[in-house]
Amino acid sequence: MSTLKLRKVAIDTYKENVAYLHRDCPLYHSEGFQALSKIEIKDGENKPSVIAVLNVVDDDSITAIDELGLSEQTFQQFNVEEGEPLIINHATPPASIRSVHRKIDGFRLDKSDYLNICKDIVSHRYSKIEIAAFLVSCAQTGMDRDEILYLSQAMVDTGERLDWKEPLVVDKHCIGGIPGNRTTMIIVPIVAAHGMLMPKTSSRAITSPAGTADTMEVLAKVDLRLGKLHSILREKRAFLAWGGTAKLAPVDDILISVSRPLSLDTTGQMIASILSKKVAAGSTHLLIDIPVGDSAKVKTQAHALKLRKLFEYVGDRMGLTIETVITNGEQPIGRGIGPVLEARDVMQVLENSPDAPRDLREKSLQLAGRILEFDPDVRGGEGYKLAANILDSGRALHKMESIIGAQGKNATQFIPGKLAHTVVAQRAGTISAIDNLKMAQIARLAGAPMDKEAGVDLHKKVGDAVEKGDALYTLHAEFMADFNFAKAATEKNNAYTIGAKLCP
Amino acid sequence: MSTLKLRKVAIDTYKENVAYLHRDCPLYHSEGFQALSKIEIKDGENKPSVIAVLNVVDDDSITAIDELGLSEQTFQQFNVEEGEPLIINHATPPASIRSVHRKIDGFRLDKSDYLNICKDIVSHRYSKIEIAAFLVSCAQTGMDRDEILYLSQAMVDTGERLDWKEPLVVDKHCIGGIPGNRTTMIIVPIVAAHGMLMPKTSSRAITSPAGTADTMEVLAKVDLRLGKLHSILREKRAFLAWGGTAKLAPVDDILISVSRPLSLDTTGQMIASILSKKVAAGSTHLLIDIPVGDSAKVKTQAHALKLRKLFEYVGDRMGLTIETVITNGEQPIGRGIGPVLEARDVMQVLENSPDAPRDLREKSLQLAGRILEFDPDVRGGEGYKLAANILDSGRALHKMESIIGAQGKNATQFIPGKLAHTVVAQRAGTISAIDNLKMAQIARLAGAPMDKEAGVDLHKKVGDAVEKGDALYTLHAEFMADFNFAKAATEKNNAYTIGAKLCP
Repeated sequence: MSTLKLRKVAIDTYKENVAYLHRDCPLYHSEGFQALSKIEIKDGENKPSVIAVLNVVDDDSITAIDELGLSEQTFQQFNVEEGEPLIINHATPPASIRSVHRKIDGFRLDKSDYLNICKDIVSHRYSKIEIAAFLVSCAQTGMDRDEILYLSQAMVDTGERLDWKEPLVVDKHCIGGIPGNRTTMIIVPIVAAHGMLMPKTSSRAITSPAGTADTMEVLAKVDLRLGKLHSILREKRAFLAWGGTAKLAPVDDILISVSRPLSLDTTGQMIASILSKKVAAGSTHLLIDIPVGDSAKVKTQAHALKLRKLFEYVGDRMGLTIETVITNGEQPIGRGIGPVLEARDVMQVLENSPDAPRDLREKSLQLAGRILEFDPDVRGGEGYKLAANILDSGRALHKMESIIGAQGKNATQFIPGKLAHTVVAQRAGTISAIDNLKMAQIARLAGAPMDKEAGVDLHKKVGDAVEKGDALYTLHAEFMADFNFAKAATEKNNAYTIGAKLCP
Repeated sequence: MSTLKLRKVAIDTYKENVAYLHRDCPLYHSEGFQALSKIEIKDGENKPSVIAVLNVVDDDSITAIDELGLSEQTFQQFNVEEGEPLIINHATPPASIRSVHRKIDGFRLDKSDYLNICKDIVSHRYSKIEIAAFLVSCAQTGMDRDEILYLSQAMVDTGERLDWKEPLVVDKHCIGGIPGNRTTMIIVPIVAAHGMLMPKTSSRAITSPAGTADTMEVLAKVDLRLGKLHSILREKRAFLAWGGTAKLAPVDDILISVSRPLSLDTTGQMIASILSKKVAAGSTHLLIDIPVGDSAKVKTQAHALKLRKLFEYVGDRMGLTIETVITNGEQPIGRGIGPVLEARDVMQVLENSPDAPRDLREKSLQLAGRILEFDPDVRGGEGYKLAANILDSGRALHKMESIIGAQGKNATQFIPGKLAHTVVAQRAGTISAIDNLKMAQIARLAGAPMDKEAGVDLHKKVGDAVEKGDALYTLHAEFMADFNFAKAATEKNNAYTIGAKLCP
């Protein structure tokens, strides 16, 4: 047993535990530790241990020779103070890594394999490279639908689970990739105005120019504690909050922290990620929107259909009622891309403004209609009309204002970024395509979502006729560096394809 | 373009580049960097960039807000001093990662894929998780023999290559896993005494209780510069040095830094690793020893044969003449396990001492004989006799002493660790098995190879008869903690199996 004094090292190592040991620490020599090897750290005899990757330090001011430095995330996993003794040992590989090796060898894993893997991952016993090995092994031979179910269940079972104590708790999810697709902020007030329970937790953008949480934050506080969410829900039947604070399916976040930098986009992980989060969040009924388009995540109807079947198979067995709609994902939805511009679009729709983007309104009504039909009292096929009625009557707007008030209105008056640049048509013709990925990238370069006022405002959509020199869209940015980056990107490729002029 | 002042951070991050950025650094915010994301660092407009993983710092004393901290390995890749300006940017994923995704999807990669992957790996453009993805994708669908060839060639082509300017440069390699198997230190002087050129670079132990470099270091300096090696070779026809200083097949070391913690032991990587190192080291003729046994790396004759065919296929196409011998790997070779004890065995064999372990002598003569037969003037089948003659006549000992003198004799007089514990037979009978893995683990726990005097001295081998209470082996250690760890391990499982007494 070898004890060292705990030292907090103010380095953020995200989802990986890192510990720092001085090269001249006597233990480093005698135990034969190596940089990047894994060590097991305990703060007492009977407490569960924490596993960390070892970095070796040559500077006493970071970690002295009788200390064990812990990165911020690692420190948080202990209940002891700086200076208290810690015991370290060589870590043995997690037992479930044997299952990963079996998956690498091409075997199918069973329910207990996935559960044990998730248990070890959630207790930080897997290093990043072990997680990568797990994900790649699942990507390569693939996971059959039962394996996707086992992984989804294991992800739910290794985290907390919310219970809203009602039989009908609805949610929606969109298989991303479409900029400006901010239907959630219109659907939630419509559905809640009808009286259905819709506790909506959303993510912040990671690779897109805005997540629902980023856009909602333009209007109201989204970072709310669970107690507050319960009380808003009781009163308003809905909220629109950031889901990051709850420990729902925490394995999902850890897997994503590895799969995203790898650009590893596998069906099995995607379905398990979505459904585990929804089940853990206490949803009973889920509408899934699968946009299909050349520059969307899902490119063909056949692929969309395959996904639908998998969602249904896994959802049914997890007790989740799932409806799937396959929508047009050929271009961005609405006009604004980026938090402030999207929030403007959303409010125009809710306010029934004549300027409101029609496509955003239509898509929101379609989806809201399908969710309303989860209500046994709503006749099949009547949902759309009901949703339109709630929106047109101003009841949706009223509900939204009341939710904003409950969450805490954002007093800041946002306006689109003051650095503006308009991109114009280089030729006359008809807009035949707008590349979703490219458009998202331009908006991100302009600063979205970190700068809420940055983004892109589209003036023309697919099918619109343009003359040479007509404005296609306006870039907005807050910082000159971002502005120049984004402008340079539009000069290389402005994301618009202009086809032949159509006859009137 | 965003510049920051270079700051050296005294943290050893081994084979992964890590950069440190303060959380309040204006660039961190405006550019949307994230912990664990990859950044590209340049120290001038036209110099090649360095890729690093980002850790976020909350402590000015580690990295201030206008600085970019670089871990030790990362710092070494720049030619500039602390305080000099660096430019950072988001790193784009290496172009060759597309090939890795194709391999994940089950496709076969071609020669240029492997070359581009190795080029990106050697320039540190791959993160650890990307390397893990590459290795697992190769492990799962496997690599066909041409793919192994392409990887081997790419690993040679992305490093330095030694040229000894002679037509016959011999080497040997053993597919590890057998403790005490220190034949190299006997073979090299025999072969060199015959006049063949054998520039032998060896590794230090990583998972075993001693590598040839660790054991040779008991007798002589092994950490020698290339110029020195050349002059020793000219004079002595051989050396026994550590191979770590030359940049031979550097991709191999980077791959191993990920595959080893994953315990990912794949045929393709193993063959590419061995053959690329040998070709890069300038060998023309190679003898490969494949020990087969229940607790060896290779467990069946069929597996050994499959490996032989692969070695021959790849070796032939790389212009390397390969001979393979399949040997008995049922138990450790010789008596000593650990640097000092193994060096003692080696010297006893070279000195023709009556105490010399017979199995180590016999195996060394067999292998040396096969290498001597690479000489066109040695008749097939005569190698063993020639080797025995060189050994028995004292010429091998003389050659070894002369090599030791040239490399620089180690003045330290080592003796086996002073903390000693003898493990005895719990019953009478005949030794039926000694577990290689278990024995290696006990010797490592005792402190080998970090403590050269630590290890295990075997008194009985397979086939020996024992009475209850007879000494099986003696543990040697330098440090009390190690001693107790190792003793505890022997009490759990002493690695010996004692079967029924055989009739005399």
